[in-house]
Amino acid sequence: MTSPIRVTVWGENFHENTDRDRAGMAERYPDGMHGAIADGLTELLGDAVDVRTATQDQLEHGLSEDLLDNTDVLTWWGHATHASVDDAVVERVHRRVLGGMGLLVLHSAHFSKIFIKLMGTTCSLAWRNDAETELVWNVSPSHPISQGVPQPIVIDEQEMYGEYFDIPQPDEQIFLSTFTGGEVFRSGCTWRRGKGRVFYFSPGDQEYPVYHHPAIKRVLANAVLWAAPQPSIDFATPAVVNEPAPRFEGQLVAEEASA
Amino acid sequence: MTSPIRVTVWGENFHENTDRDRAGMAERYPDGMHGAIADGLTELLGDAVDVRTATQDQLEHGLSEDLLDNTDVLTWWGHATHASVDDAVVERVHRRVLGGMGLLVLHSAHFSKIFIKLMGTTCSLAWRNDAETELVWNVSPSHPISQGVPQPIVIDEQEMYGEYFDIPQPDEQIFLSTFTGGEVFRSGCTWRRGKGRVFYFSPGDQEYPVYHHPAIKRVLANAVLWAAPQPSIDFATPAVVNEPAPRFEGQLVAEEASA
Amino acid sequence: MTSPIRVTVWGENFHENTDRDRAGMAERYPDGMHGAIADGLTELLGDAVDVRTATQDQLEHGLSEDLLDNTDVLTWWGHATHASVDDAVVERVHRRVLGGMGLLVLHSAHFSKIFIKLMGTTCSLAWRNDAETELVWNVSPSHPISQGVPQPIVIDEQEMYGEYFDIPQPDEQIFLSTFTGGEVFRSGCTWRRGKGRVFYFSPGDQEYPVYHHPAIKRVLANAVLWAAPQPSIDFATPAVVNEPAPRFEGQLVAEEASA
Amino acid sequence: MTSPIRVTVWGENFHENTDRDRAGMAERYPDGMHGAIADGLTELLGDAVDVRTATQDQLEHGLSEDLLDNTDVLTWWGHATHASVDDAVVERVHRRVLGGMGLLVLHSAHFSKIFIKLMGTTCSLAWRNDAETELVWNVSPSHPISQGVPQPIVIDEQEMYGEYFDIPQPDEQIFLSTFTGGEVFRSGCTWRRGKGRVFYFSPGDQEYPVYHHPAIKRVLANAVLWAAPQPSIDFATPAVVNEPAPRFEGQLVAEEASA
Repeated sequence: MTSPIRVTVWGENFHENTDRDRAGMAERYPDGMHGAIADGLTELLGDAVDVRTATQDQLEHGLSEDLLDNTDVLTWWGHATHASVDDAVVERVHRRVLGGMGLLVLHSAHFSKIFIKLMGTTCSLAWRNDAETELVWNVSPSHPISQGVPQPIVIDEQEMYGEYFDIPQPDEQIFLSTFTGGEVFRSGCTWRRGKGRVFYFSPGDQEYPVYHHPAIKRVLANAVLWAAPQPSIDFATPAVVNEPAPRFEGQLVAEEASA
Repeated sequence: MTSPIRVTVWGENFHENTDRDRAGMAERYPDGMHGAIADGLTELLGDAVDVRTATQDQLEHGLSEDLLDNTDVLTWWGHATHASVDDAVVERVHRRVLGGMGLLVLHSAHFSKIFIKLMGTTCSLAWRNDAETELVWNVSPSHPISQGVPQPIVIDEQEMYGEYFDIPQPDEQIFLSTFTGGEVFRSGCTWRRGKGRVFYFSPGDQEYPVYHHPAIKRVLANAVLWAAPQPSIDFATPAVVNEPAPRFEGQLVAEEASA
Repeated sequence: MTSPIRVTVWGENFHENTDRDRAGMAERYPDGMHGAIADGLTELLGDAVDVRTATQDQLEHGLSEDLLDNTDVLTWWGHATHASVDDAVVERVHRRVLGGMGLLVLHSAHFSKIFIKLMGTTCSLAWRNDAETELVWNVSPSHPISQGVPQPIVIDEQEMYGEYFDIPQPDEQIFLSTFTGGEVFRSGCTWRRGKGRVFYFSPGDQEYPVYHHPAIKRVLANAVLWAAPQPSIDFATPAVVNEPAPRFEGQLVAEEASA
Repeated sequence: MTSPIRVTVWGENFHENTDRDRAGMAERYPDGMHGAIADGLTELLGDAVDVRTATQDQLEHGLSEDLLDNTDVLTWWGHATHASVDDAVVERVHRRVLGGMGLLVLHSAHFSKIFIKLMGTTCSLAWRNDAETELVWNVSPSHPISQGVPQPIVIDEQEMYGEYFDIPQPDEQIFLSTFTGGEVFRSGCTWRRGKGRVFYFSPGDQEYPVYHHPAIKRVLANAVLWAAPQPSIDFATPAVVNEPAPRFEGQLVAEEASA
């Protein structure tokens, strides 16, 4: 029998605690957005996962060496306080991803330090917050992440994210979103970085109850399974190797030597 | 001084000549769709191109060995009579693409024999013809094909093409389209096949005057320049090679030999 | 509990039965190459797979509609008699792959009709048969297909396959091989076609006992697990869809309408 | 007539000036490695380029705002003193690349700050310095970068670089190298980052006169042409955009609204 996937759901936990947003957040997300995401994963994946939460306001943002050493997949939601995330923690997460940990980057975390560090680009985009309807279209119908969701997923109200989204070309394009305002967005993308798998998924603004949407929960659950490292992964970050011994004793055939 | 790029604009030339469509086509495309496309290329590229047209109703569909041997970039528009295109001509075009000729596959030519043969998939898609507005969004802002066009290109009336579009993952995604009905489509895609470059571009239905749209003409002109083979290309189709002479005289180092 | 993956190991079964090769083949592959491949999968995957073999000399090449309808992953080895494979069977396999069946294309099957049809290119390469040592290097260390194999895999004697290999750019490059003669080859490549996953793996010539090599057996077993369709896949080949109902009642905002 | 491409050849200029290496460097590279690279570009590209050099020991490493604002393509060679490159200069180069400047990353610059920042990975690799012969194989025969070079390029003596090379999957794989010791390396790779094109090319160690090799000079000249931004590029780094005005006045069709 396989061990459960150890999932850490990380939340900024800022909107939940500010005067401006507290009331609305308490209504939409009484256990915080991280709580809702964690509950959705447990609801859909049951014993296949062991889910914990961690938040930015905790010591070391809740992401101690020990916790990361026991995390197979990390989900990351942030928005208002990206800049105050400690660079040392970002470095720690980065090394763990390159060593094999899966990472789900959610919505406004496109501007998180960890995503920018992994992508190498600005990760900027176009946006408009006007409670528009978002349709999430599946363009990779046999991919593990897109199983069991309607074509398209309909989200009644969402913030609009649009192109140009400044990211490296995804290894796999899974979802594309359209909005009532006519924009398009590459809303579900995968990349491999080092030994780790990264999935960016844009639906999920703090002002709308998107993480309670059954199809969105399904996508996140699928993505956790997809991002989980192979059992054989040792989580060692790739490192330089001085190879002392050649495999072959070769030499150039004479006629080539002068080319 | 560089020689002009030899472009052949190929058209099915069917709607232009059927009772049902003749009148409307004559109004929208008095010189045929192929004529309009050819004129647009000449207008925008001038002496940089040498443009000819060829049509399906001609001998060998207008694509003789000699003409293809003198074509650097071929554009292909077809719709109603894909099935009656001669397999021998398709084979000839296929070999020329693999040898280095650029190919622009336009709109309903997603179902052409040559495109299906190059892609290896069904190339099927979703569609609805209801004069919807199409927005063509540029998701690769520095690509040669997307230079000089507005973000987005607005096409007042077009047939809707939607996902799932059954194609191999594009090497480069250049454009994504949305429609007033809410659908999304990967409308501008590139692939390399053999030594040739292939660009699929979906705007351009026979029922709408899309090929007169300034931005659409610009995309096609850009794509011709992009798809043109390097001057050093010899147009030989890749072929199997029996390499008689090794480059190295190598042998496995002893300790490895038993692994 | 999950159902076993239904694997069909297809073999040309030609060298096994010709006067020139019979004796050597009987020594290296007493149950045929297909037998050796099938045994390796059963040995390593046990109850996780249900493995059958089929060969070209059987009725319908052993690939009846019924058998394919009950195959999740097909492995294909061919060499001398590609041309006599019935086009109708190739078409049948092609549709099943696009519908979701996994396909492992082995060694000289780079020139099989099914691989050429899926790739859209000539699939030609350089080769030399001189019992050279092949080293198979893993360039995707966390990919499911490359787990549990040494870096590099050492194959004492193999036919050399070298570049240029005329294939579309792989979706994922898993292995690269070098040879004592100095050549390089993209020896382990994946592509998605329709809903199916395709893996090409070059080690495995009829003149060498490569399919008994523990690491090669491991790669093939890994690849079967990787190529198996998601449980939710319905195996319907993608098809054109006329979408009658728009999702949105949209119209262009006035100021844009003239652009 | 087109303006010349403004090329800045950047060199670490360390080995040229240390006691240990000075004599050998003066023999191999009397004008420094940067001088040799610059001379090669001017020799092969003539009036098509305007080539300058800049070195790490200069003020702001020779990369002032003004100089970068007038650079279309930057080449970067570094080895021993990556760590002492000023982060502010790296940031400046990074923004210029995302804005459209081409970047050629050479040999040991795989460990430069700018390359790691653009890739998001460790960029570590395996190596051995034993004057082995390197063969550089072209696996993209029609790519602009691989025109006019022999298959393979033979470099009599070079440092060995081998896999695993910890990079994101290249957008295009152009060259693969093998060595007399049997290793393989993805030696020529392209990526797009923001609006800029990046080419990594590994041949070129300070201990061997590789940058005088005619085919290596040809690859670098080709790469400069390939990496040069389109004339229409404005060099603005991508940035977040708040889109006030929707393009469509859309609303969800009633029956969908409850999904």
